[in-house]
Amino acid sequence: MTEILPSYVRDAWWTPGDDAAASAAEVRDASTGEVVARVSTEGLDLAAVLEHARTVGQKSLGELSFHQRAVLLKQMALVLTERKAELYELSARTGATQRDSWVDIDGGIGVLFTYSSKGRREMPNGKVLVDGPVEPLSKDGSFIGRHVYTRLPGVAVQINAFNFPVWGSLEKFAPAFLAGVPTVVKPATPTGYLTEAYVRILVESGLLPAGSLQLVSGSVPDLFDHLRLGDLVAFTGSASTAERLRAHDSVQTGGVRFSSETDSINASVLGTDATPETPEFDAYVKQLVTEMTSKAGQKCTAIRRAIVPAASVDALVDAVRERLAERVVVGDPRQEGTTMGPLASTGQRDEVLRQVRKLQDAGGELVIGSTEAPAGAAAEGAFVEPMLLKFADATAPAVHEVEAFGPVASVIAYDSIDQAVDLVARGGGSLVTSVATHDPEVAVALATGIAPMNGRLLFLDRDDARSSTGHGSPVPHLVHGGPGRAGGAEELGGIRAVKHFMQRTAIQGSPAMLTALTGVWHSGAEARPYQAAGQPHPFRKSLADLRIGDQVASEPRTVTLEDIETFANFTGDTFYAHMDEEAAAANPFFPGRVAHGYLLVSWAAGLFVDAAPGPVLANYGLENLRFITPVSPGDSIRVELTAKEISPRETDEYGEVRWDAVLKNQDDEIVATYDVLTLVAKEPTPVPQPA
Amino acid sequence: MTEILPSYVRDAWWTPGDDAAASAAEVRDASTGEVVARVSTEGLDLAAVLEHARTVGQKSLGELSFHQRAVLLKQMALVLTERKAELYELSARTGATQRDSWVDIDGGIGVLFTYSSKGRREMPNGKVLVDGPVEPLSKDGSFIGRHVYTRLPGVAVQINAFNFPVWGSLEKFAPAFLAGVPTVVKPATPTGYLTEAYVRILVESGLLPAGSLQLVSGSVPDLFDHLRLGDLVAFTGSASTAERLRAHDSVQTGGVRFSSETDSINASVLGTDATPETPEFDAYVKQLVTEMTSKAGQKCTAIRRAIVPAASVDALVDAVRERLAERVVVGDPRQEGTTMGPLASTGQRDEVLRQVRKLQDAGGELVIGSTEAPAGAAAEGAFVEPMLLKFADATAPAVHEVEAFGPVASVIAYDSIDQAVDLVARGGGSLVTSVATHDPEVAVALATGIAPMNGRLLFLDRDDARSSTGHGSPVPHLVHGGPGRAGGAEELGGIRAVKHFMQRTAIQGSPAMLTALTGVWHSGAEARPYQAAGQPHPFRKSLADLRIGDQVASEPRTVTLEDIETFANFTGDTFYAHMDEEAAAANPFFPGRVAHGYLLVSWAAGLFVDAAPGPVLANYGLENLRFITPVSPGDSIRVELTAKEISPRETDEYGEVRWDAVLKNQDDEIVATYDVLTLVAKEPTPVPQPA
Repeated sequence: MTEILPSYVRDAWWTPGDDAAASAAEVRDASTGEVVARVSTEGLDLAAVLEHARTVGQKSLGELSFHQRAVLLKQMALVLTERKAELYELSARTGATQRDSWVDIDGGIGVLFTYSSKGRREMPNGKVLVDGPVEPLSKDGSFIGRHVYTRLPGVAVQINAFNFPVWGSLEKFAPAFLAGVPTVVKPATPTGYLTEAYVRILVESGLLPAGSLQLVSGSVPDLFDHLRLGDLVAFTGSASTAERLRAHDSVQTGGVRFSSETDSINASVLGTDATPETPEFDAYVKQLVTEMTSKAGQKCTAIRRAIVPAASVDALVDAVRERLAERVVVGDPRQEGTTMGPLASTGQRDEVLRQVRKLQDAGGELVIGSTEAPAGAAAEGAFVEPMLLKFADATAPAVHEVEAFGPVASVIAYDSIDQAVDLVARGGGSLVTSVATHDPEVAVALATGIAPMNGRLLFLDRDDARSSTGHGSPVPHLVHGGPGRAGGAEELGGIRAVKHFMQRTAIQGSPAMLTALTGVWHSGAEARPYQAAGQPHPFRKSLADLRIGDQVASEPRTVTLEDIETFANFTGDTFYAHMDEEAAAANPFFPGRVAHGYLLVSWAAGLFVDAAPGPVLANYGLENLRFITPVSPGDSIRVELTAKEISPRETDEYGEVRWDAVLKNQDDEIVATYDVLTLVAKEPTPVPQPA
Repeated sequence: MTEILPSYVRDAWWTPGDDAAASAAEVRDASTGEVVARVSTEGLDLAAVLEHARTVGQKSLGELSFHQRAVLLKQMALVLTERKAELYELSARTGATQRDSWVDIDGGIGVLFTYSSKGRREMPNGKVLVDGPVEPLSKDGSFIGRHVYTRLPGVAVQINAFNFPVWGSLEKFAPAFLAGVPTVVKPATPTGYLTEAYVRILVESGLLPAGSLQLVSGSVPDLFDHLRLGDLVAFTGSASTAERLRAHDSVQTGGVRFSSETDSINASVLGTDATPETPEFDAYVKQLVTEMTSKAGQKCTAIRRAIVPAASVDALVDAVRERLAERVVVGDPRQEGTTMGPLASTGQRDEVLRQVRKLQDAGGELVIGSTEAPAGAAAEGAFVEPMLLKFADATAPAVHEVEAFGPVASVIAYDSIDQAVDLVARGGGSLVTSVATHDPEVAVALATGIAPMNGRLLFLDRDDARSSTGHGSPVPHLVHGGPGRAGGAEELGGIRAVKHFMQRTAIQGSPAMLTALTGVWHSGAEARPYQAAGQPHPFRKSLADLRIGDQVASEPRTVTLEDIETFANFTGDTFYAHMDEEAAAANPFFPGRVAHGYLLVSWAAGLFVDAAPGPVLANYGLENLRFITPVSPGDSIRVELTAKEISPRETDEYGEVRWDAVLKNQDDEIVATYDVLTLVAKEPTPVPQPA
């Protein structure tokens, strides 16, 4: 008898005892019906699993910085890449073609790579994420406010759908891991063996911090009873299951965060300008056929409603029919030539056919495909044909509400942009709507109406048809999720998704206290001018020695009219405010001729620099420069440059240092403020070499 | 008989018919018991009210830009400021002292001012809010992604608590209005007459766009049956009511956004270092007494748990007793010398006393105050004494769960920081926790544990005790709301709150399409070099003529070693990478001596500037400067400067123009990228004068 699929809990593999054997669920190959695995969690102590995450998992992840976690994500991605072949083989058993497997497996690995990269580029190498600028709350600057994100103190539980056993799990794991929150994965039973396989590779790699990832292969009936404030559930699946789970007390009153990403009745609108024979019409047809057939239409993001100008409906149906006939071969994915596999299980097949019949009963005419099994398909396999329905009444509720989670879409017609907007909205909130148009006015008119009803909009035209990542493909850079029926989640979207595993908290206090709490120097906190502190110039300190608050407070330097003219002639910037006294005085912002802002910033560098070779390697940029008070000939300027934020890199011999720069004039008025961005070596010697 | 308090619906005042008179609820003066108002909504067509918001309100607000709405908020604030006296008079009837009225009325007006200011400084003068940077999604740049916020298409319903009839309404109205979402206010019955008074002033001012604000004075039993996707409910009140409302189908499955800000069992921790006789101990005592007595303790944010080192408990109780005796006089707020008014109603009084008894039954010893009516208080008035309880068992569930919504707090002791963290967390999520400490290590240790359990943390010490805005005072700049029992809302927090009235949507498409959809020029979209387009230099165009995509594409200019030396000597920036060939070549990032980044940026200005007086008034800053490719002697640079974002000001004769600047070398490699920020006149002539 096939062995029971193990769970990975409390940092060890676990299988139910022999007495569970009888009650275990059987999982079958989607094409052949052969038993692939058996699944049971009988006797599993789920409370202990969750508590392991909250204690051991929180502790081990809490010892790592954002960048350290990000580096681990990349290493995991590399390990999975090496062993992709094993995953592909299992993936075929779920009904996935090679193309489908790329989406699931390579797509999942891609999420790890992207989060690794974004984590290091867009987050500090620390444990607290600062959100937004300082908010001054008192006139004297002694009381200020700021927002920070800190990780949730509990466990992130994933409840996943069967269609993407790898991607669906990794896309939630990556941001949770980066946030520092341990994960418990509960895959869907029909394809959980593929999730088990990737988890096994990660476990064998030794890369997983203790308790950071656990896998429960099987059902978790009492899960919600064990959850509490600080925990989070990210659910993917049907809207009706989401509804049932969300109603649990632990969510309703216990403070458990619950987010759901549910299949929605996504739309694709053919623009009024995209008449047959335009490149947009062709792109629309290709995309629709791809979305109907890739993963055999088992995608939360698939197009269910093709919303088309009335005059183009027949042309569209013909074009889709033709392309399906040319391109789509249904069969066992392991068979040469197959371009569309079976559904994940015969149960799914029966369910899809049931929903198609519901659509037919509600007025849908099946214009392409049939509900009979495809010719030559094995009866044990979960095969169905691609099907397109046409509704004469575009407002029939069923077309906007009934989902056949397979290679099934419906066509409805519209007459005006307003009507198209209304039809999209009847879906009650979607993950994604795509629009084929090359007319910016059509795009804007549609977007204004449909954006708030969607988590993602894709605009397809001749310019991006070849480079488009596709209607149905979430990308890790952009939010995945949508309002209303789509569940309201915001998964992915770069660091946005990481924040959903954290709590945003406003912090009020003195500049010194906010400096201590954030690790970022705040104006008003102690600064140490190096001369007064008897220390070396900050540019002579490597990251090993440099501390936030280390400061250069320069001598003043007087600006003359000659300086301004020299600079103007050298740079070519002879703007009248610098060169023409009368015209400058007529300008509402200047008292007369003033120094160039770039002169001041250039001089400031001369005032704060320590020129000899040393740990400061480069000035790679500058941010948030604002010119506040103009500088007239005869005024002097001085600069205060203070180490504000220090972010050593994990995989280089240097790191980023952000310096707070303030220019003041002889009256201590602020002339300009900005941040100087530098790369600084971690150690005093030797000078690092390029990688 | 007192007249029934009118509602303001569908842009007109409305009162129930005579037959409602018998069933109308009576509202009484908190001190005297005199009837102030009668309240009924019998016969009100609530569905029509909501539909008016969704149609007329959405339309009128949709015609305004963010800045236009922001200007209206300021005008409303000014009108309310002028007529504050009327509001103060009614406020006293709710039991509010003058100080309490400042918090409610001036505080509410302050929210309008802050949102007006932040709306103009931090949002574009448009209707779509771009979120985050461009995400490249294809190698050739033809397919990119970005996030935008668009307003919800429905109505924002406020269900408010009785304690802040003005602030509690305005703090939700301001961000909704700025987002462009019409509001329906449903105040709490006991103090709704004060809300009615401020709404009346706004209506009389003529400033309200049609349908943008409606007021329902009275109960709304079937409200949730009429809500749908695109609508939002912001509830303030008890956790138990929030729970009941959240359970409604329209929230659970209908996609209606529901946020709740509920009274929580907020804590204030006395740090281990803040022993008696430290300034922090004194500040802690003062704050605790303020929080117990201001608004008679009827604040969602009030301190309910004083968490104190075991050794300091007795000293604390003594100090609180002393300060209460010195400072607090309970009475009718209209009486000279009163510093604490009655509760809002005798019903509230009875409820608070019931909860105090519950705390006593659970082990709370009443160490200050009594449950008897204060000496000399009118029996018809809702007067109670300030009360402090002490729990010997700090883990008694009642002290962390039972809320007496009046001048009541409890003291519990802790022995270690970990224990203090655990005690704070037992509140199950709070709006705010304050910590009195001057020791950054104590602050960090506490913050790490308690931040994820709180919406706001306030650190009190000798440096900010005098400037602190106070534990109990939300400020519009910082998020108000908290996890778990606090309801999970994020009200206020500047523009963060505005976004909660909007939908974030990922947009994918070509640069041209994203330019059309956002109104912001995207690299890759059409740019019009002015010479080729036969147009004037963009610096010669006022906002009336300038369009995004207008471009200066400069000639190249070659950098010589002499230029680098001239610049180094002029600025004083003799950093070795510019001056020492051998040392520069040893640096991992440079091939040898390179030009200063500031030289390049300064030259770029010389290359793109049009020097004569004209509509471009000033360069006020620069953002996101990154140096990509170093420039060696003999290389040449050229600049492309493209109008990227144009934001005319509503109340000035000029506006902001953001220019996309790209420096390239002779091989078309990107040398540097940044945004140049300028002020440009709206009209060609005359030159604007300072205000």
